[in-house]
Amino acid sequence: MSAFQSGLEGVVVAQTEISEVDGERGRLIYRGGNLIEGVWQRNVPEIAHLLWYGRFPTAAELADLERVLASRRALNPAARAALAGLPVDADPMDALRTLLSAAGAGPGCPSPSIDQAKTITAQAATALAAFWRHRRGLPPVEPCAELGHAENLLYMMRGERPTADEVRWLEAYLVITADHALSPSTFTAQIVGSAGGDLWSAIVAAISTLKGPAHGGAIAAATAMLADAGTPENAERFVVDLLDRGGRLMGFGHREYRVYDPRARLLGAVCREANPAFHEVASAVEEAALRELARRYPHRPNFTNVDFFAGGILSRLGFDPDFFACVFAAARVVGWSAHVVEYLDRGGRIISPKSEWIGPEPASDPG
Amino acid sequence: MSAFQSGLEGVVVAQTEISEVDGERGRLIYRGGNLIEGVWQRNVPEIAHLLWYGRFPTAAELADLERVLASRRALNPAARAALAGLPVDADPMDALRTLLSAAGAGPGCPSPSIDQAKTITAQAATALAAFWRHRRGLPPVEPCAELGHAENLLYMMRGERPTADEVRWLEAYLVITADHALSPSTFTAQIVGSAGGDLWSAIVAAISTLKGPAHGGAIAAATAMLADAGTPENAERFVVDLLDRGGRLMGFGHREYRVYDPRARLLGAVCREANPAFHEVASAVEEAALRELARRYPHRPNFTNVDFFAGGILSRLGFDPDFFACVFAAARVVGWSAHVVEYLDRGGRIISPKSEWIGPEPASDPG
Repeated sequence: MSAFQSGLEGVVVAQTEISEVDGERGRLIYRGGNLIEGVWQRNVPEIAHLLWYGRFPTAAELADLERVLASRRALNPAARAALAGLPVDADPMDALRTLLSAAGAGPGCPSPSIDQAKTITAQAATALAAFWRHRRGLPPVEPCAELGHAENLLYMMRGERPTADEVRWLEAYLVITADHALSPSTFTAQIVGSAGGDLWSAIVAAISTLKGPAHGGAIAAATAMLADAGTPENAERFVVDLLDRGGRLMGFGHREYRVYDPRARLLGAVCREANPAFHEVASAVEEAALRELARRYPHRPNFTNVDFFAGGILSRLGFDPDFFACVFAAARVVGWSAHVVEYLDRGGRIISPKSEWIGPEPASDPG
Repeated sequence: MSAFQSGLEGVVVAQTEISEVDGERGRLIYRGGNLIEGVWQRNVPEIAHLLWYGRFPTAAELADLERVLASRRALNPAARAALAGLPVDADPMDALRTLLSAAGAGPGCPSPSIDQAKTITAQAATALAAFWRHRRGLPPVEPCAELGHAENLLYMMRGERPTADEVRWLEAYLVITADHALSPSTFTAQIVGSAGGDLWSAIVAAISTLKGPAHGGAIAAATAMLADAGTPENAERFVVDLLDRGGRLMGFGHREYRVYDPRARLLGAVCREANPAFHEVASAVEEAALRELARRYPHRPNFTNVDFFAGGILSRLGFDPDFFACVFAAARVVGWSAHVVEYLDRGGRIISPKSEWIGPEPASDPG
């Protein structure tokens, strides 16, 4: 028996050819391609094909995948009924968890497949948009098969077509967050798959994990912190005061990265374009934060992470802060499903670690 | 970095004072009490109090816990709406996953607590019974506050009070399966909690994991195998033929137990009383199976497990085979929630293991 491994830090539980986080050099690799070098400018179906099948699609394959995704967007009666009953103030992650759970309710327990991944990827966007409208007391807008994945998501929220810039910003966010090796949510999905569970169950479990403030919930926390900072002029004092009080800077630090998170670099550039006012405050806070963190904790690598600039982009696109993690989840369905199917294809065993008994030696009856 | 640990077998990821599987001596310990020595004869609220608080309740505490559980049984409008939309042929685990997800949909992300565990324990039973009726085209039966946890579950299915024997059999099943140290589903719930997720999300994720045929789904598979065996007279030939064909005997073997699973011993006794016809076939199959397994694989411990006799009890109580895992889940909510709260109380870190990149060295663009 191994010794207790708190948090499983550094423990390798899966082998993958899907994505790699190269924390030393600040690279995020999707199937052999460096995200920051052009890969991130592809659209969601291209990235999904890359992550699911190991290479970018041909023009014919892309057209086919786009057609399949578009044809599977509509929610079924079970998901619509669940939507109608949700409280409008529910956390959007609870809504996404419930709608996909309802959408996936059916007989038996089919083995996870990429074909199912396409259905869930399509419907996650629909569920997100439907709950966005439900909160506003509006009925769902049916998907439009003529629109691409990202464009249709914004269309289903608003009932009108977004601008080309908005589509580009959302597409970039969805692509940049589509996968990230073995996050806790991805690991959860793999455990479900390892026990023989279906892909809907695996994705529902992953959403449940991503909801936590220490995981997907961190985007809204970072955004709230930037709102507290208020103005670029106040950034320096805000950061120093926060750290002096023992507070925690949100949007900094990651277990893997020893250098600047490549996703933060890309999202920072998108944010500058999509939401200049947000970016101005964020940049000033970032500058002060990186300087103060380096000064106070010189031996601890602590760089801007994926959550820091995300709120600027997502709020510009019309998402309330509590929807941020939900957009992340809709993006990450692609990566979650890729890892579940890969784990099973590689003959992965049921993931079943142990606990260690640290209570008193058992008596017959503890009464 | 550690080497790849497939399935995390033997890896210790949590320390616990809640339950222990002593696989060498065939003991299951709940909080210092040996299940097989009297503990199993307590009722669900007593066991829940034991697992949640570390000791059996006083009479006043028990009365209070029973009152609280009884007062929280009713499903909220979100869960009722989700129920109405579910296909009647949905897997009951999909139904339980969806109804508890809907029931737990609310603002924000409250920290897991034993108080929430009480609500979810109460409502899991209601959700299970409601879907049992939904499948039959019947409207839900509202819970009856005068009845105990197990009795009320059967009452909500049938609309009439069960016999005292039936209550005793169900109570025994629910108690015997209420916890089992760190199963894959319990681990999943802990991961959700470790990321800061709420208890509803943790339980939904655990249900998603338990659904798999390699986990909770095994009860139905074992029962189907016994139906195939047919009669006690056919048992020997059935077992030999199955093994000769390279088939797998369901309801035998467990990663932890090196001796007979104490739960199988208890459930076998309950099954003999609840369902003598089933028990007769099961005993004949078990006898032949243990002999053949020992002869063919003398160095591999392979004993009857918790799934083997369960179907006899549960089918006698009116559950269809695809409901078996769902009853297990309704029982295990008690243990899942205990482990999540304990992990957080012990200051548990976010559970975030790694994957190992085994693809080719990244190029700039994988096109």
